Amino acid sequence: MDLSFTSLGFASALPTVDRFPSAHILKVCGRLFLIDCGEGAQIQMKKFGISMLKIDEIFISHLHGDHIFGIFGLLSTMSMLNRKSDITIFAPADFKSILDFFMNNFGEDIGYKIIHHVVSCTKIEEVFSNKNIVVKAFPLKHRIETFGYLFQQKEHNRNMIKEKINEYKISIDEINLLKSKNNVIRKDGTILEWKDVTYERFQAKSFAYCSDTRPFPELCNWISGVNLLYHESTYTDDMKDKAYERFHSTAADAAICAKKAGADKLLLGHFSSRYQDLNVFEKEARAIFTESYITEAGREYEI
Amino acid sequence: MDLSFTSLGFASALPTVDRFPSAHILKVCGRLFLIDCGEGAQIQMKKFGISMLKIDEIFISHLHGDHIFGIFGLLSTMSMLNRKSDITIFAPADFKSILDFFMNNFGEDIGYKIIHHVVSCTKIEEVFSNKNIVVKAFPLKHRIETFGYLFQQKEHNRNMIKEKINEYKISIDEINLLKSKNNVIRKDGTILEWKDVTYERFQAKSFAYCSDTRPFPELCNWISGVNLLYHESTYTDDMKDKAYERFHSTAADAAICAKKAGADKLLLGHFSSRYQDLNVFEKEARAIFTESYITEAGREYEI
Repeated sequence: MDLSFTSLGFASALPTVDRFPSAHILKVCGRLFLIDCGEGAQIQMKKFGISMLKIDEIFISHLHGDHIFGIFGLLSTMSMLNRKSDITIFAPADFKSILDFFMNNFGEDIGYKIIHHVVSCTKIEEVFSNKNIVVKAFPLKHRIETFGYLFQQKEHNRNMIKEKINEYKISIDEINLLKSKNNVIRKDGTILEWKDVTYERFQAKSFAYCSDTRPFPELCNWISGVNLLYHESTYTDDMKDKAYERFHSTAADAAICAKKAGADKLLLGHFSSRYQDLNVFEKEARAIFTESYITEAGREYEI
Repeated sequence: MDLSFTSLGFASALPTVDRFPSAHILKVCGRLFLIDCGEGAQIQMKKFGISMLKIDEIFISHLHGDHIFGIFGLLSTMSMLNRKSDITIFAPADFKSILDFFMNNFGEDIGYKIIHHVVSCTKIEEVFSNKNIVVKAFPLKHRIETFGYLFQQKEHNRNMIKEKINEYKISIDEINLLKSKNNVIRKDGTILEWKDVTYERFQAKSFAYCSDTRPFPELCNWISGVNLLYHESTYTDDMKDKAYERFHSTAADAAICAKKAGADKLLLGHFSSRYQDLNVFEKEARAIFTESYITEAGREYEI
């Protein structure tokens, strides 16, 4: 699986018997991104057989406790597991005081470097890129500075259709041009079109993380065409006033966002502890956007 | 149950799939004491149906992450549950920087007062007392400043034997004297002896918490006659060198302490993550002290 999403927890402020606070894993070609780090994230990773040493980047949406209180245990455990390689934490500027506290009080034995990449933007902006993926941050509308993240796989070169190589006796130089979507003019004046002799090796996919936020119009544009969208839905529509007052969304808001963005699939999460039966969220969202689902902790969603 | 002990977790530094970090509940006449607060303590309380709002006192042994990283989530959740009454945290002096960090970064909405009672002693000393119980702290031998705690139920007044009240026509004033173990000289010169007309309502019990520590001779004297002893046993005897180097105990050390203290029962905990089968600890301890048991998370042990 080149790209998959696994939630470790999706409670809102108050955890419940079976819902841990917010923390999620995005697997990208075998490496792991951690998205938010609520209390118990390391315990859930252990439970679901996810190796925390495969994490080199952590993306924090905001600094409310239910999204960050697991970071201390995680960073400590990584060190006890003999981690030596750097880790980068993408987080709002105020994360500095959290990291300083941790290093001053518990950092003595930390055997690796922790880099705080300050996220600060007023529109969607790239914050990270490697050979497989680009990560963009965008501002959300919550009670404190909060960011969503869009993870987009990079387009790869196309593959050659083997029979065509033999048929046209295509050279190595020509292959490199064609795989990068360049047409080739041959010595005899004929044109080899890349579309005719190559095929798309894979479809670049994308994932967006939107938690916590009030609904607002720009959001669906920023994540337009996303394949899998995780969107908070702390409340149902009958509690819309409470949702907006607390800078949160309803299941209907999440579904409208998914629909307007043209998403393939919506995962709902960050449910208020007042809800025991989560089916009400799915029902509300599906009336607007059919491909809406309650997030299941520990399930690996292929994107 | 007047006095009972329930463990929420007893992992050592690295949690495992089924062992949460150190956190325990002592129930005293319906109120709860929390002893240590490792990550996930609030989640375990939820799971075991334990109400965190019944906690007014928290006793912290030391400031290693596996004993303290759950405090942030717990204090936040208590506030969201609308706690208004003070909470007192008994902890080493350095807890100040942890509490300051919490209050500066996450304290804005905390609707109750958090009192840090600094624990600092070189021998056993009383740190808390109410009508039901006395709590004493004593220093342990770990890599950083660490304290154990002894919880002793107070002796209560005796109860009157009803038939004797009628037989001797005992007055209210006389009853109060007799129940507090005073003999009474009556007008006719006869003596009413408290032993003859009262009975012991209940036997005062005690619980001791010893984690984390190297074994040392004074410890068993301080907790002499304890009914239930929770003692760390991070390693088994074949890893004694490692245990002492890390300032920890083996199962045999815990059993020797229980035996010398004349304890009724020993609960073993704080097992290194390297052990999957915990029966080795019980076996090793029982060879020295028969009433040795592996702690079971969520089980309420009556004392």
